[in-house]
Amino acid sequence: MPGFYRYTDRTDRARADALDEADPLREFRLRFLPFPGPDADALIYLDGNSLGRPPISALDAVTELIAADWAAGVGSWGAGSRSGRPAWIELPTVVGDLLGATLLGADAGQVLISDSTTVNLYKLAAAALDARPDRRVIVTEAANFPTDRYVLEGLAAARGLRVEYVGSDISFRPDVALVCLSHVDYRSSAIADMAGITQAAHDAGALVLWDLCHSVGSVPIELDAAGVDLAVGCTYKYLDGGPGAPAFLYVARELQASLRQPIWGWFGQLDQFAMGPHYHPVPAIDRFATGTPNIVGITLVEAGVTLLAEAGVDRLRAKGVALTSYLVDLYDDWLAPLGFELASPRDPASRGSHVSLRHSSAYQMCRGLIERNVVPDYREPDLIRLGVSALTTSFVDVHEAMRRLRALTATGEYLDIETVRTRVV
Amino acid sequence: MPGFYRYTDRTDRARADALDEADPLREFRLRFLPFPGPDADALIYLDGNSLGRPPISALDAVTELIAADWAAGVGSWGAGSRSGRPAWIELPTVVGDLLGATLLGADAGQVLISDSTTVNLYKLAAAALDARPDRRVIVTEAANFPTDRYVLEGLAAARGLRVEYVGSDISFRPDVALVCLSHVDYRSSAIADMAGITQAAHDAGALVLWDLCHSVGSVPIELDAAGVDLAVGCTYKYLDGGPGAPAFLYVARELQASLRQPIWGWFGQLDQFAMGPHYHPVPAIDRFATGTPNIVGITLVEAGVTLLAEAGVDRLRAKGVALTSYLVDLYDDWLAPLGFELASPRDPASRGSHVSLRHSSAYQMCRGLIERNVVPDYREPDLIRLGVSALTTSFVDVHEAMRRLRALTATGEYLDIETVRTRVV
Repeated sequence: MPGFYRYTDRTDRARADALDEADPLREFRLRFLPFPGPDADALIYLDGNSLGRPPISALDAVTELIAADWAAGVGSWGAGSRSGRPAWIELPTVVGDLLGATLLGADAGQVLISDSTTVNLYKLAAAALDARPDRRVIVTEAANFPTDRYVLEGLAAARGLRVEYVGSDISFRPDVALVCLSHVDYRSSAIADMAGITQAAHDAGALVLWDLCHSVGSVPIELDAAGVDLAVGCTYKYLDGGPGAPAFLYVARELQASLRQPIWGWFGQLDQFAMGPHYHPVPAIDRFATGTPNIVGITLVEAGVTLLAEAGVDRLRAKGVALTSYLVDLYDDWLAPLGFELASPRDPASRGSHVSLRHSSAYQMCRGLIERNVVPDYREPDLIRLGVSALTTSFVDVHEAMRRLRALTATGEYLDIETVRTRVV
Repeated sequence: MPGFYRYTDRTDRARADALDEADPLREFRLRFLPFPGPDADALIYLDGNSLGRPPISALDAVTELIAADWAAGVGSWGAGSRSGRPAWIELPTVVGDLLGATLLGADAGQVLISDSTTVNLYKLAAAALDARPDRRVIVTEAANFPTDRYVLEGLAAARGLRVEYVGSDISFRPDVALVCLSHVDYRSSAIADMAGITQAAHDAGALVLWDLCHSVGSVPIELDAAGVDLAVGCTYKYLDGGPGAPAFLYVARELQASLRQPIWGWFGQLDQFAMGPHYHPVPAIDRFATGTPNIVGITLVEAGVTLLAEAGVDRLRAKGVALTSYLVDLYDDWLAPLGFELASPRDPASRGSHVSLRHSSAYQMCRGLIERNVVPDYREPDLIRLGVSALTTSFVDVHEAMRRLRALTATGEYLDIETVRTRVV
């Protein structure tokens, strides 16, 4: 109960302690593996929006998978070798349905864990373009995540189409085949109006493909209710699926029979093990599968999604809003006076689970924070991106990170840090 | 030393014992996880050609990866968090080079661990077709693995090309753009003449793409020496990388700058983290990468390849030949008289590491073998496929499996088994 604690102003550490004390999700932090090494306790990780933390259950799940299911041999594809576990061949849709039901607002049979976000973008965008063969334009944002832009650029080059970059105007011309946007902007954290843009795209006769990488697991998503056609997303950020874990894709049920993706693989084939002479895709979400699914990866995704589902999307969102709002409070009182600029929406309803701060010395400050045991994220040319993850970030983490950033800036220490770039993913 | 043991004929169990005793790789079996459950000791696994066994080192490697590297956070992408370990971002090429040097006959910088076999086939076949825009024909075999055929069928449909199925004739007409074949046939086990076919394809001005799924880790491969253009393969069979582990691709160095694959993703981008406006692929093997590589999967692949590399390709091949030759001896003496037919080459120089036996009741016999704790593989419509894996299969395994198959057949017990199909991967 924050009211019971005394603090003189909103930058007091006591406020952070009080907020943590009142946090209904605070115990979830104990269900993740700790940082290794001697500095573990001092480390503040504000990059869960780039690589989520490892659930303890993930380690258990993968150990069991290897020592029980994989060790049992090839039969695990067709039958769960342990009580209550699905057959491997069902995992892409079983975990897809779990993700859909708990975090995507998607009824069963529309979500598949498959490939990487990039490959899924390619498959679904190509399928959409094939379904609008007379239209010449793909719409995206110049600020969209690079892989999205590159995939669309490649498809446009191969087909002689044009990529157009939309700004705040969301009325689409009748030559638009596909609108492909990110639900949450990876730099600014702005949340797009999914339902409104989807409707506008449909009004123009276009299909819409949403990239959920930066929203899934932190922001409520209602794909079915918003009438979304297609969506993709990664599982290694807020979903805690691990580095390079398999991604997901969503195809609205009513579109599944008519859309065809370009990578014709045996896991999309009807009666797969008849191994017949020609490709006849399954009339369901599996038609968007390609090769053999990565069972270890999907098992890790399942562990992450299960943990988030237990917390529930409403509590995840409430905590995310509380954490980023608290961060903005500290920015206002501590950092705005030192020359920082808020590069994310001030209204929490329009903001995802990270906050970007602009400063001309952002790179040096990110280096300085890392030296001071705070892990932020740097985005060219001038953004410090601070991501909070509802299950693993505390209010004290935010307070302490902002305090260190303030000290680094106020003392001018950041000015001594090399500006030579080294890779920060 | 087989000579020291007495056995009256070559079907005697004593011969198997002697061969195991003399096997220089016999200790490797102890470096894999055992089968779980009470029947573990009785189980004979002859499906390592479909899903290899889990190395103990794989479990250790993935545990360390999760509890040390992943737990250390996003910084593991840019720097190995443990002494001697490469940064995650280097893993696809580091493990690719290891695989290339030890099992593929490929110099460094030509092999990448990436995506699935299906997606890699798609990328490389599309790149090859783009490089031969005036040619209208893709050549493959009607008996090629389904996903290969389906990928090529899809590319042909999208581009208005024709797929032609080659038989034993390997002279190619000048309208052939791409020849795509399996090095070892997944049904018959026949080894293709990689160097000869590659030369014939080049003589016709075509590019060649080899699928190594059924040979890598069991049959010597010399990609560079054979002048191969392109190759792909999976890692979950003889390489023991685990179910659905990431696959690999090979692109000959001299072709890398001129070939372009269709899935333009951020991991193929030059100066990736500048996140620039347009796609400019890396002038190296990484240009065939797409999305974020699966680090857990690649770590498992590394564990498997490391074990095979330690054994060495010559010993792997010698043991594979000895095991399949022994299996053919037992077929000759026990099963040929019972109506089986050898569906694999009799000459070991032409045979990979599995042997297929044809019988009109093959499906029932596979079911019967599974009930008797032998794991074979069934291939429509009449093949029992028995795969041996040099590091995990013993001569006693082969003897005992063949003895049980003989008993199942000779007694007529297989006739009582249901013919209703259930899925066998």
